[in-house]
Amino acid sequence: MHRIPNPPLDLAHGRVDMSHGAGGRAMHQLLQQLFLPALGNPWLLQGDDGARLPEANGRLVMATDAHVVSPLFFPGGDIGSLAVHGTLNDVAVMGARPLYLAASFVLEEGLPLADLARIVRSMGDAAKAAGVPVVTGDTKVVERGKADGVFITTTGVGVMTGPLYLGGANAQPGDAVIISGTLGDHGAAILSVREGLALDSPIVSDSAALHGLIADLLAAVPTTRVLRDPTRGGLAATLNEIAHQSGVGMVLDEAALPVRPAVAALCELLGLDPLNLACEGRVVAICPAEEADTAVAALRAHPLGRDAAHIGSVAADARCFVQMRTRLGGQRMVDWLAGDALPRIC
Amino acid sequence: MHRIPNPPLDLAHGRVDMSHGAGGRAMHQLLQQLFLPALGNPWLLQGDDGARLPEANGRLVMATDAHVVSPLFFPGGDIGSLAVHGTLNDVAVMGARPLYLAASFVLEEGLPLADLARIVRSMGDAAKAAGVPVVTGDTKVVERGKADGVFITTTGVGVMTGPLYLGGANAQPGDAVIISGTLGDHGAAILSVREGLALDSPIVSDSAALHGLIADLLAAVPTTRVLRDPTRGGLAATLNEIAHQSGVGMVLDEAALPVRPAVAALCELLGLDPLNLACEGRVVAICPAEEADTAVAALRAHPLGRDAAHIGSVAADARCFVQMRTRLGGQRMVDWLAGDALPRIC
Repeated sequence: MHRIPNPPLDLAHGRVDMSHGAGGRAMHQLLQQLFLPALGNPWLLQGDDGARLPEANGRLVMATDAHVVSPLFFPGGDIGSLAVHGTLNDVAVMGARPLYLAASFVLEEGLPLADLARIVRSMGDAAKAAGVPVVTGDTKVVERGKADGVFITTTGVGVMTGPLYLGGANAQPGDAVIISGTLGDHGAAILSVREGLALDSPIVSDSAALHGLIADLLAAVPTTRVLRDPTRGGLAATLNEIAHQSGVGMVLDEAALPVRPAVAALCELLGLDPLNLACEGRVVAICPAEEADTAVAALRAHPLGRDAAHIGSVAADARCFVQMRTRLGGQRMVDWLAGDALPRIC
Repeated sequence: MHRIPNPPLDLAHGRVDMSHGAGGRAMHQLLQQLFLPALGNPWLLQGDDGARLPEANGRLVMATDAHVVSPLFFPGGDIGSLAVHGTLNDVAVMGARPLYLAASFVLEEGLPLADLARIVRSMGDAAKAAGVPVVTGDTKVVERGKADGVFITTTGVGVMTGPLYLGGANAQPGDAVIISGTLGDHGAAILSVREGLALDSPIVSDSAALHGLIADLLAAVPTTRVLRDPTRGGLAATLNEIAHQSGVGMVLDEAALPVRPAVAALCELLGLDPLNLACEGRVVAICPAEEADTAVAALRAHPLGRDAAHIGSVAADARCFVQMRTRLGGQRMVDWLAGDALPRIC
């Protein structure tokens, strides 16, 4: 490929302008100097309209997620790493090994190129760490005031790694409900930045790629029935969804829920419930009760699952209620939020 | 699947609010009542975090595009149909048959639900007409003033349908340059709406799914070397890109360029060149010169290729210049635009 004349971008002080999205020289400059060095791999470097990839052996899985998190940077990550993790996790919870990512960027005119470079590098680092390349992409620019810095949509393709069927409709009364780690760290990290709280030690997002952890779990417990990552709406929304898909109820044990003290304190302060806070590096697993200990042990053996816990069970309940036995011995409903308490968490 | 209680949305007068993106009941209401009826297919209806698809036999192709076109509705289409066509075409020009689409929506608070419903129906209709289902999706909502109505990213997956290698780096001196139809209709349609021009007969976007047309072309001329859809930046940017990828020059024949009189008149009025206007339903093909007539005939035999023309040839030129023989017998450079004359055209 012959290089197009390509004067250096001012990555320290420059800003995104409308020409960076217009399909001409400026767009190529941005691709060549900012995107390709951070994300580079043979597919992306071909410079065609898409990526031509090897044949995949097995049933395909496809998932997509738009990321609009605000602020763009937070303790434990940024919109770039989050966009990699979020979509890889959606592929992984389908029981698939993620193979490839596509990424599209909507940039707001005026975004500092230094911020964009940091985000794209973080995205490249996360993709490399996960072993899943960003093979194709697209960039658009909109006028100042028509977006909010940057939005990133990632789409993942993977292959099913086993014959097993996992799905939200498979939970059965008596099954165990397991979570791979502490609840709400991501949501609390975002909120603490938004609220400008000066914490002694910042709350760090749990954002992480879970496909390794999930592969370990499925190897140990191939009879796992449901996997899902409790992102928007937190564990409460995720369990309510599954309850309705499967036509069952659930009963959680409050004393068993892993919540970091700092997250619990923040929730107390802001009048929130950790059950409604998004996680970005946790997975809910539902499996036969007799496999619960094996599942928890498999999760705890992985660095991303050290705080895994058996938190409740599936119940026969045609109303599909998710309930919780409280520490005080009472019982309360775990509803999903009707409203918008936590916008733009991911 | 047990239905979640789901009071009817006010699709006539309602507006998108922040709760529609929060992962709770309101989001499910929007999915169940607006997205699923328009896009519905067995994969989407599973309601999981991704789609589990059959095994694909052949090398995979993946392409993604963010769509930020303004205005959202224009003669010949809207952001919904455009988002289907744009990505299907990116898959098709790689020499692949598109199989599946994923779609992510970033919605601005306050967007009329009627507009969203119209866009999503248009998307569903375009996907159905193309025979490529939207198998998975995502919806986020951002505050008023933080987006511009709706942005849609679509990602396509396809399989290579032949052994052939198509790519921007394959043009060879002597090859023929062919376009499947008139230039700039899409760009001109958008501009005429933006400028509020009252035309006797509106200029209609060429937005269309090209995979059928391209399959016919490749069946007739399997030695085709390069395919690309001249979207942002128009034919000028596309040919300059290919020239640099292949390390060749090109010479176009102005008299051979198919341009509708209304588009030519609009360009004259606004001081633009049809070569810089985006097409969304055209493909540039580069093939051996001796196959040019066969290629043009194959294109013209398809409803979407009736105005196909042999418009120039590839030349040996280490400077990678794209030039044009003018109607008056002169020669001029066909450069790509440095700037942002035509933002948000797709």
